[in-house]
Amino acid sequence: MPEQPNAIPYITSYYEERWGFCLTHEQFENLEEGEYEVFIDSEHFDGELNYGELLIEGESKQEIFLSTYICHPSMANNELSGPTVVTFIAKWLLEKGKPKHSYRIIFIPETIGSTTYLSLNYSEMKKNVFAGFNVTCIGDDRAYSYVPSRAGDTISDEVALHVLKWTDPNFIKYTWFDRGSDERQYCSPGIDLPIASIIRTKYGKYPEYHTSLDDLKTVVTPSGLNGGYWALRSAIEGLERNKKYLISVLGEPQMGKRGLYPTLSTKKSGEGVRLMMNFISLCNGRTSLLKIAELLGVAIWDLYELCDKLEEHNLLSINE
Amino acid sequence: MPEQPNAIPYITSYYEERWGFCLTHEQFENLEEGEYEVFIDSEHFDGELNYGELLIEGESKQEIFLSTYICHPSMANNELSGPTVVTFIAKWLLEKGKPKHSYRIIFIPETIGSTTYLSLNYSEMKKNVFAGFNVTCIGDDRAYSYVPSRAGDTISDEVALHVLKWTDPNFIKYTWFDRGSDERQYCSPGIDLPIASIIRTKYGKYPEYHTSLDDLKTVVTPSGLNGGYWALRSAIEGLERNKKYLISVLGEPQMGKRGLYPTLSTKKSGEGVRLMMNFISLCNGRTSLLKIAELLGVAIWDLYELCDKLEEHNLLSINE
Amino acid sequence: MPEQPNAIPYITSYYEERWGFCLTHEQFENLEEGEYEVFIDSEHFDGELNYGELLIEGESKQEIFLSTYICHPSMANNELSGPTVVTFIAKWLLEKGKPKHSYRIIFIPETIGSTTYLSLNYSEMKKNVFAGFNVTCIGDDRAYSYVPSRAGDTISDEVALHVLKWTDPNFIKYTWFDRGSDERQYCSPGIDLPIASIIRTKYGKYPEYHTSLDDLKTVVTPSGLNGGYWALRSAIEGLERNKKYLISVLGEPQMGKRGLYPTLSTKKSGEGVRLMMNFISLCNGRTSLLKIAELLGVAIWDLYELCDKLEEHNLLSINE
Repeated sequence: MPEQPNAIPYITSYYEERWGFCLTHEQFENLEEGEYEVFIDSEHFDGELNYGELLIEGESKQEIFLSTYICHPSMANNELSGPTVVTFIAKWLLEKGKPKHSYRIIFIPETIGSTTYLSLNYSEMKKNVFAGFNVTCIGDDRAYSYVPSRAGDTISDEVALHVLKWTDPNFIKYTWFDRGSDERQYCSPGIDLPIASIIRTKYGKYPEYHTSLDDLKTVVTPSGLNGGYWALRSAIEGLERNKKYLISVLGEPQMGKRGLYPTLSTKKSGEGVRLMMNFISLCNGRTSLLKIAELLGVAIWDLYELCDKLEEHNLLSINE
Repeated sequence: MPEQPNAIPYITSYYEERWGFCLTHEQFENLEEGEYEVFIDSEHFDGELNYGELLIEGESKQEIFLSTYICHPSMANNELSGPTVVTFIAKWLLEKGKPKHSYRIIFIPETIGSTTYLSLNYSEMKKNVFAGFNVTCIGDDRAYSYVPSRAGDTISDEVALHVLKWTDPNFIKYTWFDRGSDERQYCSPGIDLPIASIIRTKYGKYPEYHTSLDDLKTVVTPSGLNGGYWALRSAIEGLERNKKYLISVLGEPQMGKRGLYPTLSTKKSGEGVRLMMNFISLCNGRTSLLKIAELLGVAIWDLYELCDKLEEHNLLSINE
Repeated sequence: MPEQPNAIPYITSYYEERWGFCLTHEQFENLEEGEYEVFIDSEHFDGELNYGELLIEGESKQEIFLSTYICHPSMANNELSGPTVVTFIAKWLLEKGKPKHSYRIIFIPETIGSTTYLSLNYSEMKKNVFAGFNVTCIGDDRAYSYVPSRAGDTISDEVALHVLKWTDPNFIKYTWFDRGSDERQYCSPGIDLPIASIIRTKYGKYPEYHTSLDDLKTVVTPSGLNGGYWALRSAIEGLERNKKYLISVLGEPQMGKRGLYPTLSTKKSGEGVRLMMNFISLCNGRTSLLKIAELLGVAIWDLYELCDKLEEHNLLSINE
C-alpha cells in the first residue's frame, strides 16, 4: 500500500484457493530484482470450528447476549479489544453477585462462527435473548459509535443510545446499512435477535484498520479500553436496573415527615428535591426507568441512588 | 426583600413550628434600634378543613372538573383571580340551560384541599371526569399560558392548546416539569385525572408573585380577567360542542338546491363555500369537531354556525 | 377576459337556466355597436348519461381503479390528456399478459358521472378496489404534481409519492384541500375509496386552464404526455410488483457459491453487492417492496432485476 508504506495489509481469500504474501510497501520496494522460489508449508484439511462460551445464570432466564470475535487477534482494535473488554465484563458479572438477568457470552470467529453458533442455538436464543451487543473495535480513544440492530428500536438500541448520549454527546450514530460484523447474522430475517453495537471507532473508519498498524501503541490505549468497558458496562447495568416503578401512595407523598426533604435549603438541594418529585410523578408502574431518565433529561445512573432511597422508605414497588 | 423594598413577602411554614413577621424592607429598615417584645396571640388546635363544592347536572354523567383554591386570597392573581373566574363560569353554566356534560366545581385550599377532596371522591371522579382544569393566575393581561396534564395528550390538553393557539398565537407552553399547583395531586400516578391548566401569567413567573404587590391595580386587570374568563369558557364550550359528525349523504351533497350556495358570488362567499365543502369532506363520523378544526386550520368556534346550518338541513348526524 | 384577449373562456351554468356566448375579448372589442338578435336553437330534454367502462380481469379480484373524464374534450390538458393517457395504459395492460390485479377503468363526465357510477357500483368497489387514480391534466411538460386521497396514507398515496419523488424530486405535493376533481366523490365520507391523483400541472394552476388556449401546441406536448404516461404506468407497475419477500435462508446466504458475487470487483460491482446484501437483510416477509425501496433510498424499479435474479436462485419466497 503506497499510501501506508510501513503497514502490512491484512488480506484473506476464504472461498477461492489462491496464495500470496502480505508485506509492507517498503519491504516490497527493497526486494532485489530476480526470481524467487516460494515454498509454502501449508495444507487444506478438514478441521473443526472451536469457540468459547460462558453462560452466567441470573435470577431470570431472560438473557443478555455478548458476542465477540477471535479470528485475527494480531490486530488490536479490530479485534483484540473486543475479547479483552468482554473478558473484564465477564469478570465483573461473576464477581458482583447473582445478576438479575442471565448472560450468554461467546468468543467466535467472525461470520462463520456466528452462523455456526446460531445454527446450534438459535431457537433457544430466540426464546431467551432479550438484549445483546456485538463487541468489536472498543479499545481506541478517538470516538464513541453505535450501530443499530436491524429493527433499530429494541431495548439494546434504547440503552445503547442512552448510554452513549450521556457518555459522549458527539457519539457517532451509524445506520443498519453501515453494519459489517456479526450483527449481519444475528439480525438477519428469521433470526431477528435484538443485537446492537457499542463501538469506539468503527471498523473501516480509521486508517490503521486491517493493517499491522492497528496496534497497542497508537490505536488502542488504556483510556480507550477503559471508556469502551464503561460504556458497555453502563449499558448492562442500565438493563439490570431498568425496572418499572410504581409509587406506593396516591397523590404526592409527604416527604418531610419521611425525612426526605433536605433540612438545609441550598440551590443544589432544591434541584435534588425537584428531581425527586418529578421522578415520583412519573412512577406509574408502566414507564421503564430508562424512559423516565429520558423524560427527565438525566442519565439513568443519576437515578440509582434515588431509587434505592425511595425503595428503602417503601415508597416504590416494582411492576415486572 | 431589598430588591422589592415596598413588598411584603408571603411566607409559610406548614410542617414545622416557627414564628416570624412578614413586613416590607422599608418597614424593616425604619425599625428603631432596640429590643422588641413580641406577643403572638395565636394557638394550634384541631380544626376542620372546609371546601366549597358545586355539582351541575348535565345531559350526560360525564363530568368536567374545575378546581380553584382559596388559601391566601389576600393576593390577587395568585389566587383571587381563580375563584373569581370560576364563579362567573359557574354562573354562565347555571344560566345557559342544561349543559351536555355535568360539572364538578370545587373551591379548596391548595395541596391539602385537593388531597382531601381526592381521598373522599377519587373513585367516583375516575369513573366520570373526562376533562378538567385547575384554575389559577387567570386575571392579569400579560400572557396566556398552558401547563399540561401529566399524560399531556388528554382531551383537556387538546382543547386548551387549541383555544390558546386561537386566542393568542404567542401563548406560553410549559411542560409537566413546570407544574406547581393542584395538578400535582390530580395527575399523580394512580389518580391520573385529565387535568390541564389554562393560565394567564404563571405562578412564579411574575415579579409580584407571592408578595403584597400581587394586587388589583398593577397585576390583575378587568381585561386580564375577561381574557382569562373567555379562554376558559371557550375551552368548555369547545368540549360541549366537540361532536363527531357524519355527513348524511354519500358523495358531495347538492348544495345549490338546498340553498346553501351563496346567490351572489364574492371573494368572501367563495371562502365560505370552500370551508363548508372542506368541512363536509371531513365529517366521517370518526373525527371530532376539535380535530376537524385543527385539520382545517380554523378555530373551533368558527365552525359552530356552519354545524348548526347543516344540522338544520339534515345534512349532519352525530356519532356519539 | 381583458388579461387574455385571444382566449375564449369556458363557462358553464349547470343548475340555473341562463344563456350567454363565450368569445375572445378581441372579438368582443370588435363587435359593432347596435342591437343584436340572438337565436338559440337548443332545448332542454330528458336524455341519458353515458360512460365508458373497461374491466380487465387479473389473477386477483383486487382492483386498481382508473377514472378519467370526458365532458369538455375541446381543451387539451384539462381534459383530453386524461382519456389519452388512460387509453394507452389500458392498451399496455391488455397486451402485457394477465396482470396480477384486476383493473376497473372508466371514462365519465366529471362530478355527475362519478356520482352516477358510484351510485351503481360503490358496494362492489368498496369490496374490491384497493388502489386507484383519478387521471386529469397529465399532458403538459411543466411540472409533476400529486393530490392525496382524503385519508392521505393509502397505498395509492404511497406509490404515487414514491414514483413522483424518483421521477422529479421537485414534484408539487398538494393537500386534500387543493382537490377539485372526482376524488371529491371517490373519497367522500362513507365512500372512502383510496383514490389519489398523479398530475402534470394541476387544474387551475396554469394560465390557459379552462380557456381555448389549453391546446395541443403550447400546453400539451408529446414529452408531457409521455412523462405523464410513464409516471402513471410506473405507479401501476409498482403496485403489481409490491410484494412482501422473505429470504429463504437463515443468516446471510452464501452468495459466492451461487455465483451472485461479481467475479471482477469494481466500484460499481461493490455498490451492486452492497445493495443486494442490504436488500436481502430487509426481506423479512412483512415489509413491502415499496417500503424496502424507501428504506434503501432507491426507486422501486431499481429492485425489479435483483428480485427476479434472487427468485431464480430460490432465495426469495413471497408472503401474500
